[in-house]
Amino acid sequence: MKEFQLIEHYFRNKGQKRRDVELSIGDDCALVNPADKKSLAISCDTLVENIHFLADIPAHALGYKSLAVNLSDLAAMGAEPAWFTLALTLPCVDEPWLAQFSAGLFDIAEYYGIALIGGDTTRGPRSISITINGQVPKGTALTRAGAKRGDWIYVTGTLGDSALGLDIIRGVKTVNAEDKQYLINRHYYPTPRVLAGQALRTLATSAIDLSDGLMSDIGHVLSASKVGAIIDVDLIPLSNSLKANLSREDALSYALTGGEDYELLFTVPESQRGAIDTALIHAGVKFVKIGQISAGDKLKLVENGQAFTPISRGFVHF
Amino acid sequence: MKEFQLIEHYFRNKGQKRRDVELSIGDDCALVNPADKKSLAISCDTLVENIHFLADIPAHALGYKSLAVNLSDLAAMGAEPAWFTLALTLPCVDEPWLAQFSAGLFDIAEYYGIALIGGDTTRGPRSISITINGQVPKGTALTRAGAKRGDWIYVTGTLGDSALGLDIIRGVKTVNAEDKQYLINRHYYPTPRVLAGQALRTLATSAIDLSDGLMSDIGHVLSASKVGAIIDVDLIPLSNSLKANLSREDALSYALTGGEDYELLFTVPESQRGAIDTALIHAGVKFVKIGQISAGDKLKLVENGQAFTPISRGFVHF
Repeated sequence: MKEFQLIEHYFRNKGQKRRDVELSIGDDCALVNPADKKSLAISCDTLVENIHFLADIPAHALGYKSLAVNLSDLAAMGAEPAWFTLALTLPCVDEPWLAQFSAGLFDIAEYYGIALIGGDTTRGPRSISITINGQVPKGTALTRAGAKRGDWIYVTGTLGDSALGLDIIRGVKTVNAEDKQYLINRHYYPTPRVLAGQALRTLATSAIDLSDGLMSDIGHVLSASKVGAIIDVDLIPLSNSLKANLSREDALSYALTGGEDYELLFTVPESQRGAIDTALIHAGVKFVKIGQISAGDKLKLVENGQAFTPISRGFVHF
Repeated sequence: MKEFQLIEHYFRNKGQKRRDVELSIGDDCALVNPADKKSLAISCDTLVENIHFLADIPAHALGYKSLAVNLSDLAAMGAEPAWFTLALTLPCVDEPWLAQFSAGLFDIAEYYGIALIGGDTTRGPRSISITINGQVPKGTALTRAGAKRGDWIYVTGTLGDSALGLDIIRGVKTVNAEDKQYLINRHYYPTPRVLAGQALRTLATSAIDLSDGLMSDIGHVLSASKVGAIIDVDLIPLSNSLKANLSREDALSYALTGGEDYELLFTVPESQRGAIDTALIHAGVKFVKIGQISAGDKLKLVENGQAFTPISRGFVHF
């Protein structure tokens, strides 16, 4: 593999230019100049073929999604995207594939104004590992640890679409022709809630992005914040496409346990409830209250005041 | 794979604590506070089984070396190590292996005072991808681009040991019993020249770490600096272990084209030659002048004033 030429052609001098990047790809390290009075938020995610993505995922979608899932981690901290490195391992040089992967990657990179500053291309079984850097004013980052009893629990967007999209791709579910592409796109092209995360900085007491599924991910907030929660499943936001193709029970199961929505779940104290409408008005995403933080350490699902148990879909994440 | 428990046990709360780390592994991102008036140096290296390391490499050595090669990139920029993220892909959970890998990783991390702040453990063919962050006072980073005609060319340590070590491990070469372990260790446990790199900040005009081999790596400096070079092969530093086991021609071939020495090559103007002895006195590594930057764009090897051509070892880096 002509590693240097590959990097050169498909990744070097591509995408966003930033004034805080002093030296980009091509030396032993990149050099960047962090802003004053900000903390750096750093996260790292690896996607491995047949574990995190199917071998036949379109290269453009894979490029886009690889960065989207990392941007979602920054969103959950309320951080502003800045720079990222890409470790790309490929079994062979497939130029059309690389061109599409690169196009998908830089489509989302440019949209969010984030610069690729380093990388390593190696030969081996296909995987993508991205380390992302964002910036957040000192002391304002959102974590999983600040939820307090009485805080209201919100989520952005709609839940379950991505998991249903994956099941369509895998041939496990069939849906109406008019909903099919929407649901598949929700799986291939998740929208990281970057602006929403930044807008919530001074309002939310905790936040997390929904990558493993609502029930699993809220568990991290409850455990880090040492609290419990009650969620009213009637309030969980479901897309029309999800509702049109599934029974109510099935739809709730996807929404509660399906992964990869990359929506934000966040908690807001009663005193700030009025402020979030204003704060999120420019974030371009709907959000709804689905429950409340409680004492204890348990998650309770309720429906019409009664305990609710989601049906098992036998969902195995690959 | 119980991903979370794995991370928890072998990587979380291990190793160096740093006061500039506000939040470490366990949330959506880590939070760190960069120093004022410094640039961040960021680099990313991936090691893939059977490409960058043999399947039977001891886990301790692999843990150590994975971070060492990244530290070497910081050294080449004159940056001070700060934080790193680890993307670890493993085919299965092998606890003794993980314990050893983690021990090797944190041995070198603690020695250089660098903190693991994030990571991702995934199932798949074995590979390690590290993104490292260092800090360097603004405007003082060493790059490959500053070498000027007339500058003297230096290297640290001795060259060729690592490549001979690898050939011993692969069974391609045999050496004296007394030299065997030294040479193997030079391959498994390279010493990143972190202190030397920092000491050279205001003195050297360019620097690079020797990962692919002297002839290949100096090419990057010449091309970035738009200059040529003359190297006197008689001046190339060779270890006694290398010399004792190889013909002179063979030894020079290892030193010129063998990779993974992770020594520094740097250029110094005549006016600073006297200063580098003092500067490097605490860096704990020897260094010698091997040539001079010239006009043009070619690398010339000479021996007693005559052109020199190294013999081909048919070396294929895996």
